Amino acid sequence: MVGHFISFEGIDGSGKSTQARSLAAALRDMGLTVTLTREPGGSTGAEEIRRLVLEGESDRWSAETEILLFTAARRDHLEKTIRPALARGEVVITDRFADSTRIFQGVTRGDLTATVDALHSLMIGVEPDLTILIDLDPAEGLARATARAGAEMRFEDMGLAFQSRARAGFLDLAARHARFHVINGARHPDAVAVDVMAAVRSLVAGA
Amino acid sequence: MVGHFISFEGIDGSGKSTQARSLAAALRDMGLTVTLTREPGGSTGAEEIRRLVLEGESDRWSAETEILLFTAARRDHLEKTIRPALARGEVVITDRFADSTRIFQGVTRGDLTATVDALHSLMIGVEPDLTILIDLDPAEGLARATARAGAEMRFEDMGLAFQSRARAGFLDLAARHARFHVINGARHPDAVAVDVMAAVRSLVAGA
Repeated sequence: MVGHFISFEGIDGSGKSTQARSLAAALRDMGLTVTLTREPGGSTGAEEIRRLVLEGESDRWSAETEILLFTAARRDHLEKTIRPALARGEVVITDRFADSTRIFQGVTRGDLTATVDALHSLMIGVEPDLTILIDLDPAEGLARATARAGAEMRFEDMGLAFQSRARAGFLDLAARHARFHVINGARHPDAVAVDVMAAVRSLVAGA
Repeated sequence: MVGHFISFEGIDGSGKSTQARSLAAALRDMGLTVTLTREPGGSTGAEEIRRLVLEGESDRWSAETEILLFTAARRDHLEKTIRPALARGEVVITDRFADSTRIFQGVTRGDLTATVDALHSLMIGVEPDLTILIDLDPAEGLARATARAGAEMRFEDMGLAFQSRARAGFLDLAARHARFHVINGARHPDAVAVDVMAAVRSLVAGA
């Protein structure tokens, strides 16, 4: 894969989707070709799987079934969207990737970390070149996420304790993998965007 | 799991669904409690995944994504339908289980056998006590399956060569696993049912 692969991660309401869009616009202004995508989803098939996973009751699927569905969606997303764009030399920016599965299914709902990692190695096997973690206090994130409530509320419904475990899990992942860059999300989006661009600039300088 | 777990396998049109229903009726006549189910599907969530997988174009999903979707559906089926019924001491009869994934995704669409087996060990880990393979010439099976054509024709659309590889794959699996019992499906359904009952009787005799 010859392009650049960037993921945004963080708890719900952290502002990562806004930042992913801002970064895509900024890189396009620099003359780069950008594919902006998201998970779960990002391809026609994966978007259909997304609907299955995100709508309905919180206990609709076990953590194990959810991991399988997210991995199926990720495989489709990788095959149909990410790999072709990278092969064309583009910058791919995805709003969530495998780290979200590691946290939301692997850590916060009982310890399934080993299962998530084994499944990822078997069926996905790819990591982003750079992962931007937008870090935010869970109470603030939950307030923001609840304010824009729609049909896809399964995870937000799981509450503050859930989001707190998720934040701790993301920070722990970031401490263990060099591809992570942690950015304080409790500021004006423009200030956050400046830090995001600083983290990305060296990666795409040669593009 | 204290009940008895029986699967029916075979190519499309082999008559296995008819035989699964006949066996369920016969065992109920003997006073046993039977849960008759099927894959993909067999639970509310798994039936939704079934629709995703079986409708649409043949090349809609890669073999790898399909394996993940079938395994997600199987996990839900196992948790919500099979394990609870076995725990109640029932006989569970399923029209297809993991062997279908081994053949339809593992063997016939390129060699993904190792991937299917690794995924099964990781996320499912259960095999039936007895697997009845209804064996039939693929040309006859395809003619029967085509005669009842509906929306779920993705696999039937793959044609005779596909069904021939599937038949050979099933017979090879049966030769390698003692839980298989192969029955000639090219006869009147009543004659096939006699052989099915003969294969099942010793298993359920103590039930």
